[in-house]
Amino acid sequence: ESLTIGQYEFVQNAFSFGLAVMAATTLFLWFSRGLVTPNYRMAITISGLVTAIAGYHYLQIMLSWQSAFSVTVDTIETTGSPFNQAYRYVDWLLTVPLLLVELILVMKLARGETISKSVWLGGAAALMIILGYPGEVADTAGVRFTFWVLSMIPFLYIVYQLVIGLRGSIDKQPENVRGLINGAAYLVVVSWLFYPIVFLFPLIGLTGGAAIVAVEVGYTIADIVAKAVFGLLILAIAIRKSENET
Amino acid sequence: ESLTIGQYEFVQNAFSFGLAVMAATTLFLWFSRGLVTPNYRMAITISGLVTAIAGYHYLQIMLSWQSAFSVTVDTIETTGSPFNQAYRYVDWLLTVPLLLVELILVMKLARGETISKSVWLGGAAALMIILGYPGEVADTAGVRFTFWVLSMIPFLYIVYQLVIGLRGSIDKQPENVRGLINGAAYLVVVSWLFYPIVFLFPLIGLTGGAAIVAVEVGYTIADIVAKAVFGLLILAIAIRKSENET
Ligand SMILES: CC1=C(/C=C/C(C)=C/C=C/C(C)=C/C=O)C(C)(C)CCC1
Ligand SMILES: CC1=C(/C=C/C(C)=C/C=C/C(C)=C/C=O)C(C)(C)CCC1
Repeated sequence: ESLTIGQYEFVQNAFSFGLAVMAATTLFLWFSRGLVTPNYRMAITISGLVTAIAGYHYLQIMLSWQSAFSVTVDTIETTGSPFNQAYRYVDWLLTVPLLLVELILVMKLARGETISKSVWLGGAAALMIILGYPGEVADTAGVRFTFWVLSMIPFLYIVYQLVIGLRGSIDKQPENVRGLINGAAYLVVVSWLFYPIVFLFPLIGLTGGAAIVAVEVGYTIADIVAKAVFGLLILAIAIRKSENET
Repeated sequence: ESLTIGQYEFVQNAFSFGLAVMAATTLFLWFSRGLVTPNYRMAITISGLVTAIAGYHYLQIMLSWQSAFSVTVDTIETTGSPFNQAYRYVDWLLTVPLLLVELILVMKLARGETISKSVWLGGAAALMIILGYPGEVADTAGVRFTFWVLSMIPFLYIVYQLVIGLRGSIDKQPENVRGLINGAAYLVVVSWLFYPIVFLFPLIGLTGGAAIVAVEVGYTIADIVAKAVFGLLILAIAIRKSENET
């Protein structure tokens, strides 16, 4: 591919940055478990798990990136070992449902509601990723687009639930955290929107080195917002709610 | 480059030393969390995170250094794989804001003040690093100097805040830690001054093997002071304040 050495290094640095952010956030979240009452510990444990899983996958992605290219004096060549995109899907399959579970757990609904909402939202999230994957690895634009449409169905269901379906439960939250919980729900919607848009890039003819950089760096930033920033927001909510309760 | 084998090894040893110091400090700080009251635990957690993140980046820097040169009997050659300077910037982007947050947290101000000071000082620190980066990778002296000037604006803002802006809050600290907190603020100012000076070296014609050694070893020493020594000072402050409060 027409990747320059500068572009190669920029993507490598973005992956390394992603790895460092995820690992650091994991430790911070787990060290902070003691700051919240036992009611909210599971939400924090899971927030840290999500960033831990992402950190592991950023390591794998970074190693795959390094082995896909060889840099010699002023030239960069593909080695033939393909850059493995699937790590992102494996990561998402695990972490995307858990992100929704974090949000549900920190709301501390009745047990039955917690379980049913987790199953429905988590299940939709898993289905969304599973339906997207055949499109990602497809050779033709038609197949790619078909699976995009299929994957958008659970995606829109999740957006609907976050914006409308959870409304009743959010309104019952203590007043001093309602704004933060609303913010967390909208952070999910906005940061997740990035993924289906990027998925369409190859269809509108974006290819080559600059497109690779845009996609990989873009995903990395979106992941940091959707997992690390979101996790810290969940922690902030949990700390405030714990203070209310003691 | 005109690097001798001795110089190559000296820099390698400095990186390895940096890695060991950062890792050891991280463990020491985290093991010591139990010595302070919960009020100060977050400051210690973050101090350890900063050294952990730095340790990770020293590992990456060291590996990049090793792969940039090949040493055979009595000769040293560049392999073509470039020595990746950007790891330092990635590291700084994460750790420099956190260093200021450590200082603010250990002062234990009112919550609103803690948040606003963290956002302003942390934001200025991130901006400073982001503005420095295009200068670091620039090809011409003019561009390098321009971004140095831009980056100096948030730098001077931070220095002003540490020396003048925090004065009121420092004066309200318990008497037996006031000296230490003052010391920590000045340690930041003095150790951070090193970086913009080194950045100018290439502009005043310092190049070649000796300059590389000076820059890399110099940065390593400055990092150890700014992160590890500073982190231990924060721990000392937190321990004293905890004693006051029990
Ligand atoms: C709708 C849609 C997609 C949605 C992906 C999403 C929403 C991924 C979210 C990932 C997150 C939040 C990662 C964690 O940080 C795919 C699979 C790209 C396929 C095309 C259609
Ligand atoms: C003002 C200025 C700079 C300041 C860098 C600083 C102040 C870095 C501090 C790093 C620390 C404290 C590392 C941690 O240990 C740059 C970016 C070199 C660019 C040129 C202008």
